[in-house]
Amino acid sequence: MEKIMLSLSGGLDSAVLLNTAIYEKKNPTAVSFIYPSKHNEYERAAAVSICNYYSLELHSVNITSVLASFKSNLLKGQGDIPEGHYEDKSMSQTVIPARNMIFISILTGLAESNDAKEVWLGVHSGDHLIYPDCRPEFIENMNLAVGKATDKNIRLKAPFLNWNKTDIIAQGLLLDFPFHLTRTCYKNQPIACGKCGSCVERLEAFKANGIKDVIKYEE
Amino acid sequence: MEKIMLSLSGGLDSAVLLNTAIYEKKNPTAVSFIYPSKHNEYERAAAVSICNYYSLELHSVNITSVLASFKSNLLKGQGDIPEGHYEDKSMSQTVIPARNMIFISILTGLAESNDAKEVWLGVHSGDHLIYPDCRPEFIENMNLAVGKATDKNIRLKAPFLNWNKTDIIAQGLLLDFPFHLTRTCYKNQPIACGKCGSCVERLEAFKANGIKDVIKYEE
Repeated sequence: MEKIMLSLSGGLDSAVLLNTAIYEKKNPTAVSFIYPSKHNEYERAAAVSICNYYSLELHSVNITSVLASFKSNLLKGQGDIPEGHYEDKSMSQTVIPARNMIFISILTGLAESNDAKEVWLGVHSGDHLIYPDCRPEFIENMNLAVGKATDKNIRLKAPFLNWNKTDIIAQGLLLDFPFHLTRTCYKNQPIACGKCGSCVERLEAFKANGIKDVIKYEE
Repeated sequence: MEKIMLSLSGGLDSAVLLNTAIYEKKNPTAVSFIYPSKHNEYERAAAVSICNYYSLELHSVNITSVLASFKSNLLKGQGDIPEGHYEDKSMSQTVIPARNMIFISILTGLAESNDAKEVWLGVHSGDHLIYPDCRPEFIENMNLAVGKATDKNIRLKAPFLNWNKTDIIAQGLLLDFPFHLTRTCYKNQPIACGKCGSCVERLEAFKANGIKDVIKYEE
């Protein structure tokens, strides 16, 4: 049977990707990274709920010590999460340098150790402007590096690479995906703020699909 | 001032690389990875001694939890370290899948966070046959991925990529490098075994340079 390693954050994109992989019978192992982002505990809880929903085990990897001296406003104890649009310049404060590259490398090692042939990541076109390691030119080069790093020629796939958030929600609607289980807000609070770039992009994408988001937002 | 991130294992190759970087005034930050390889505590102690010798701080990153479900005889609790030549087929049991890829990704994030322009790795031609993520085709593709993953276009360099162990020892002799501080043996014992692939390659390379290794070996 086919087998893939899939990075599941608990956000909407990777969760719809997991649903897609299940639909395509890829036999995904969902991997969640534990690290001190401001929203990690809410995102992690979402990843757990999503895995429970699909009766999948969640494989967790703690990289807290790895990121100990990384600079990013996404991390606890560092600057504030900016408000505004997801593609605003200020959102670059939320970059964790090489985070996806680190995720992909670890997933590649896990794939090689556990006989999975592919590594899947839920990056999308909305990520390209601000996050270098979400761009097509990174994914292409990283796919070549992943193949060469392994004896089993593992492949890196980002099926939503050129989709926008609206497309991903449309895909979720097609698959009857449980959107209420996901966590998108970057802030350290249980209820989504509705104002950070991540919330704003999500709200716009639900609107573009002609439906109302099912999660609660702060008044 | 220039600044680079350099992976220092405590083995001979990365230690001579550190000496080279200091000689070339690259202002290296030495980064050592903590993980449960059978020889990690001896290798780590060597990395500490080497940094003390050069009055450098050693930056440590613990990836024990990252490698928790990786398969490799190099890791504690898994199969035995094979004896024989470093390029024997049996040495593939000591591969930790994508280990260098994980190291490079973390070093890239550290470089971007700390204004370093390059990531240096001490891989050499003797590593190519057994370890996929030490081969030129991996290093070339990974260098492209590292550049694309970062806003500051960080570079990956492996100055010893096409050198063999004999060349590296010759370089160390030129630089008056303290070989007695290094740890090469893969086994979980304080004195080098002299029989594992790693010891055998080292002994041959000292012999090829017409000198006797300065460290102690088991009788």
